[in-house]
Amino acid sequence: MTFTNKLKNIWSKNNSLLCVGLDPDMEKLPKHLLKSKYPVFDFNKAIVDATHDLVCAYKPQIAFYSAHRAEDQLEMTMQYIVDKYPDLIIILDSKRNDIGNTAAMYAVEAFDRYQADALTVSPYLGGDSMTPYFDRKDKGVIILCRTSNAGSGDLQDLEIKGEKLYKVVAKKAVNEWNYNKNISLVVGATYPNELKEIRSLVGDMPLLVPGVGVQGGDVQATVKNGVDKSGTGMMINSSRGIIFSDSGANFDQAARKTALGLRDEINSYR
Amino acid sequence: MTFTNKLKNIWSKNNSLLCVGLDPDMEKLPKHLLKSKYPVFDFNKAIVDATHDLVCAYKPQIAFYSAHRAEDQLEMTMQYIVDKYPDLIIILDSKRNDIGNTAAMYAVEAFDRYQADALTVSPYLGGDSMTPYFDRKDKGVIILCRTSNAGSGDLQDLEIKGEKLYKVVAKKAVNEWNYNKNISLVVGATYPNELKEIRSLVGDMPLLVPGVGVQGGDVQATVKNGVDKSGTGMMINSSRGIIFSDSGANFDQAARKTALGLRDEINSYR
Repeated sequence: MTFTNKLKNIWSKNNSLLCVGLDPDMEKLPKHLLKSKYPVFDFNKAIVDATHDLVCAYKPQIAFYSAHRAEDQLEMTMQYIVDKYPDLIIILDSKRNDIGNTAAMYAVEAFDRYQADALTVSPYLGGDSMTPYFDRKDKGVIILCRTSNAGSGDLQDLEIKGEKLYKVVAKKAVNEWNYNKNISLVVGATYPNELKEIRSLVGDMPLLVPGVGVQGGDVQATVKNGVDKSGTGMMINSSRGIIFSDSGANFDQAARKTALGLRDEINSYR
Repeated sequence: MTFTNKLKNIWSKNNSLLCVGLDPDMEKLPKHLLKSKYPVFDFNKAIVDATHDLVCAYKPQIAFYSAHRAEDQLEMTMQYIVDKYPDLIIILDSKRNDIGNTAAMYAVEAFDRYQADALTVSPYLGGDSMTPYFDRKDKGVIILCRTSNAGSGDLQDLEIKGEKLYKVVAKKAVNEWNYNKNISLVVGATYPNELKEIRSLVGDMPLLVPGVGVQGGDVQATVKNGVDKSGTGMMINSSRGIIFSDSGANFDQAARKTALGLRDEINSYR
C-alpha cells in the first residue's frame, strides 16, 4: 500500500490527525527505566502501547538515538510497531540531504534498515538530490518547507520575485517533484498564516505539522488553517509535550491522557 | 586547538589541500576484505595508513555507514585516526539540520561520539538551528553553500534582490554566523565560477570543495578560483576517485598513487 493510502486509512480508523514524536531524551526518561538493558526501547514500547489507538503516526527523531549509540533500540522500536500496529505510519525524522549516490544510501537507511513509511528531507540541494526518495513509490517523502523554529525565516522568508522561498519550495513540490504522488511538506504550527497559504497552494497534499505543545503553536489556528477539504490532510506532531507528561511509574498512562486530550482538541476544530 | 588552526597546521605540514572521502560503498570494497569481521574498518585503516602524509583531511560520509549498520566501524575509523594521526582533520559529512534541542543531539553525535573536528550542515532551517554547532568553539561547522550536483541551482540559484541564494548564504556565514570563527563553506568544484565569486566574498574562510574526480570538476580551475591569498584555504575532496583506484590486494597502494598525483596536481596550480 502506498504511504498516502496508508495515511488515509489510519486517519479514518483512529479518527486522529495526531502524530507522536518518539524523542527519548535520556535525561528525561523515567528513572526506573534506566536500569533496563534497553531503556529507550522500553520507554518507546510503553508509549506506543498506551497511545496506538489515538494517533495516525509515530515520528522518531533519529538524533536522539544516534547521539547515544542507540540505533539498535530505534530498530527494535520500528520492528515493534511494524509487527504489532502495522496500520500506523512511521516517519523517520532525519532531515537528510545529499547528492545522488549518497542520497541513495540514506534511502536504504530509512526505508530498508529502519522500515520507515516516510522520511523527512531538506530541499536545499535541489530536486535531483531527492530523486532516490521520490523513486520509492510506496514510501513518503516529507520535505522541509516552513520549519517551526524562530529563525526559519533566515532563508525561508527570502523573496524571489515577490514570493518567499518556502512558497517556491511548496510549488516545486506540487508541480515538479510529485510524480509519484508521495510528497508531503513540513510546515510549523508556529506559523499559522504560512500554513494557510501553503494549504491553498498544495491541494490535499499531506502536511507534517510540528510545533504544537512545548513550542507553543496554537491548536485551533493550526487545524483551521491546515486541514484539507476533507478535514484531514495533516499529521500534527507533539513530542516532548506528550511523551514526558509524567516521569513516574505511570508515565505511559499520563502520556495517553495528554494524547487523548490533544487528539480530541484537534478533532473539535476539524 | 581550534579547527581553523589545526587546519592551517596540517596544510603546511603535509603541503596538501587534499581531502579524501571515506565512503566505503560495500559493493566496491576489495573482495578479499569481505571475509573480515570489520571490512569497512579494515578498508579505511589501509587507505588512511597509505595516504596520511598526503592529505589535510579525511571525510567519512555517514550514509555509507548507517545504511549498513556500520556505525561501530565508523567509530573505530575515527578512533584510529585520532590515535595514530592526531594532526589530521576529520570531517563528519552528515549534512545535518534540525531545530535547537535536536541540533544539540547532532552536535553530540558528531563531536563527542565520533570525535570529528568538523561536521557538515544544511542552512535551510536558518541561523538559530546551527547555534549548537557554532557554539562549539574548537570545532568546525561546514555549511552547504553551493553544492556540486547538477540540480543544485533549483534553490541555490534563486535570486533575492538580484543576488543568488548561495551568495546570500555565504554573506550570512561571514557577517552573521561566524562569531566563533569556526565556519567553512561547501562549494562544488563543478561550479568554478561560483567558487571564484564565493572566495571573493569570504576572505580567507576555508572552503570544502567536493566534485573533482568522478564528478568531473576541473582541478586547475578549482585551485585557481578557490585558494585564498596565502595559496591555501581549501579542502579539495575526492572520494571514489581515490579510494576505489584498484579493487585488488594492492588497493591501498593504488589509492596512494592516485592521491599523490592529485595532491601534486593541486599543488602545481597554487
